[in-house]
Amino acid sequence: MLASLGLPAQDAATVGRLMAEADLQGSDGHGVIRLGPYARRIRAGGMNLHPDIRIVSERAGMALLDGDNGMGHLVMKRAAEIAIEKARNTGIAWVGSRLSNHAGPASLYARMPMAANMIGLYFAVGNANHLPAWGGLDMLLSTNPIAAAVPAGSEPPIVLDMATTVAAYGKVKAKAQRGEPMPVGWMVDRQGQPMTDPNKREEGFLLPIGGYKGYGLSLVVGLLAGTLNGAAMGSEVIDFNADFETTTNTGQAICAIDLDAFGDVDAFKARVDQLSRELRASERMPGVDRILLPGEQSHERREQYARDGIPLPASLLRDLDAMAAEAGVAPLGAR
Amino acid sequence: MLASLGLPAQDAATVGRLMAEADLQGSDGHGVIRLGPYARRIRAGGMNLHPDIRIVSERAGMALLDGDNGMGHLVMKRAAEIAIEKARNTGIAWVGSRLSNHAGPASLYARMPMAANMIGLYFAVGNANHLPAWGGLDMLLSTNPIAAAVPAGSEPPIVLDMATTVAAYGKVKAKAQRGEPMPVGWMVDRQGQPMTDPNKREEGFLLPIGGYKGYGLSLVVGLLAGTLNGAAMGSEVIDFNADFETTTNTGQAICAIDLDAFGDVDAFKARVDQLSRELRASERMPGVDRILLPGEQSHERREQYARDGIPLPASLLRDLDAMAAEAGVAPLGAR
Repeated sequence: MLASLGLPAQDAATVGRLMAEADLQGSDGHGVIRLGPYARRIRAGGMNLHPDIRIVSERAGMALLDGDNGMGHLVMKRAAEIAIEKARNTGIAWVGSRLSNHAGPASLYARMPMAANMIGLYFAVGNANHLPAWGGLDMLLSTNPIAAAVPAGSEPPIVLDMATTVAAYGKVKAKAQRGEPMPVGWMVDRQGQPMTDPNKREEGFLLPIGGYKGYGLSLVVGLLAGTLNGAAMGSEVIDFNADFETTTNTGQAICAIDLDAFGDVDAFKARVDQLSRELRASERMPGVDRILLPGEQSHERREQYARDGIPLPASLLRDLDAMAAEAGVAPLGAR
Repeated sequence: MLASLGLPAQDAATVGRLMAEADLQGSDGHGVIRLGPYARRIRAGGMNLHPDIRIVSERAGMALLDGDNGMGHLVMKRAAEIAIEKARNTGIAWVGSRLSNHAGPASLYARMPMAANMIGLYFAVGNANHLPAWGGLDMLLSTNPIAAAVPAGSEPPIVLDMATTVAAYGKVKAKAQRGEPMPVGWMVDRQGQPMTDPNKREEGFLLPIGGYKGYGLSLVVGLLAGTLNGAAMGSEVIDFNADFETTTNTGQAICAIDLDAFGDVDAFKARVDQLSRELRASERMPGVDRILLPGEQSHERREQYARDGIPLPASLLRDLDAMAAEAGVAPLGAR
């Protein structure tokens, strides 16, 4: 489908693989479900199919990438590769992007340095503002996510992937689709009162985690991933679910930390294993079946789906097959 | 007082200045109030007065410091200096510590790179575990703080300094001292029920911000500041309010990001100013007088106290003067 939309074959394959990998780890809000919106943006001329992704500024431990409005997956894969390569020499490297686009789940890129025995950190400016300043009403901040991936030994890696809001906006929409109320604490209305009806979401705001702390965290992530790189932040962020033509100027940042620079890699991994085990073996609160480490459920889904295939909801499958039929591409249902 | 406790004159002056700076910015839980506990640890032989603070591992963009169980202020000041020096060349640098100690408020060190036109990030493992894994009962995690300091132009810098728990443990103790109940959401008991009586704090746990998200964040901060450096993490963390003899093996990390590596420094600062102003000018919720940026209150306190002096509570002043009298040092009250 991506090739039929005009992406060069190799870029289409890269983006397709990364989208599938999002679904493989259960990040289904950031996987193949995005094909429709991506296609719409491409057809509206809102994304550059032949970007000249280039380094505009560089030092031994950093680079700033201009994504030339190409697909975010291509920009961030390149960013991760550069960060890993530089961190081999300097011990740590940071690569920021501007003029990038939505790139899928944050953990996809934070995970990349792990194969090189590095810790990966990832920060991004979200593509729609749903969060005001603490005490404010103007939506000037996004769910700006943070991801961190820490290699382990025999235990699964520890992979955190979180929005800086209590709930992601997609979860609110899912509640509306299922006709369920939201828990108190996800959103408030313009009077600051709890909002539980997901159908009224346009009249309210997402709440940041820990109140003013999450506001500060979202802002700092935006400064690191957006403002530092000359990418959109604050009122410059467009709502990419409403506007398919304007360049998003998405900013992201990836940081790779080489374990080998700090000491023996296996000893580090053994310490992570031990910590994972002691957390998991913790005495549990009544009613709690299992203590989970960040990324553990994704890790299990990754193994299960790789073995059994990735389940797609029937409605999504129908939408994809309809898109395929329109583009003259073999449908998934027919396979 | 620090000199009378046996610190070399120059180290005593350095630690004293940094402790005063904590009070100057209103971080009064991390300033001169800590002199008592520091003195107790020093007298118990729990801290090394003549540490050989040295780099044990180094690359162009990183260093790992062994603090040799010296005072944390000395270790982290050195760490910040090394990070700034390295970041001038590589664009970003990261310095971790092990065998360090409590160093005061996180923002003190995150702020240091700002004078060199750099963003500062700081992570630390707290010195007492008050947080279990999400769903667990064993206290294996601390309030592991995050700080970030971002230079601005004519606006105050944006300085975030936050524990990864809803409330810091010191705030719970303050509620108990004042005989006030805690708000719901600060702590839960071993059944997971909200706890509002601060006198029962020993029977409960602090809650992480955003529930399982804050648990993940605290863990990741601990991995970066503790595990990566071979410092204490998980069950290795001692309670430094109960045990004054055992080496804390505190781990911290500081990261400096050179603005100049990413483009024009003044243009960056102008973007931060603009963002600050648009957040501050946001329409406000009913009852909200003012929108604050992270660090804005500390900034104002810093200016006010520098002009008018730092107010100390009478009880603290009495305690300090009693310590001074015992050590034959001139009391504050007499000045």
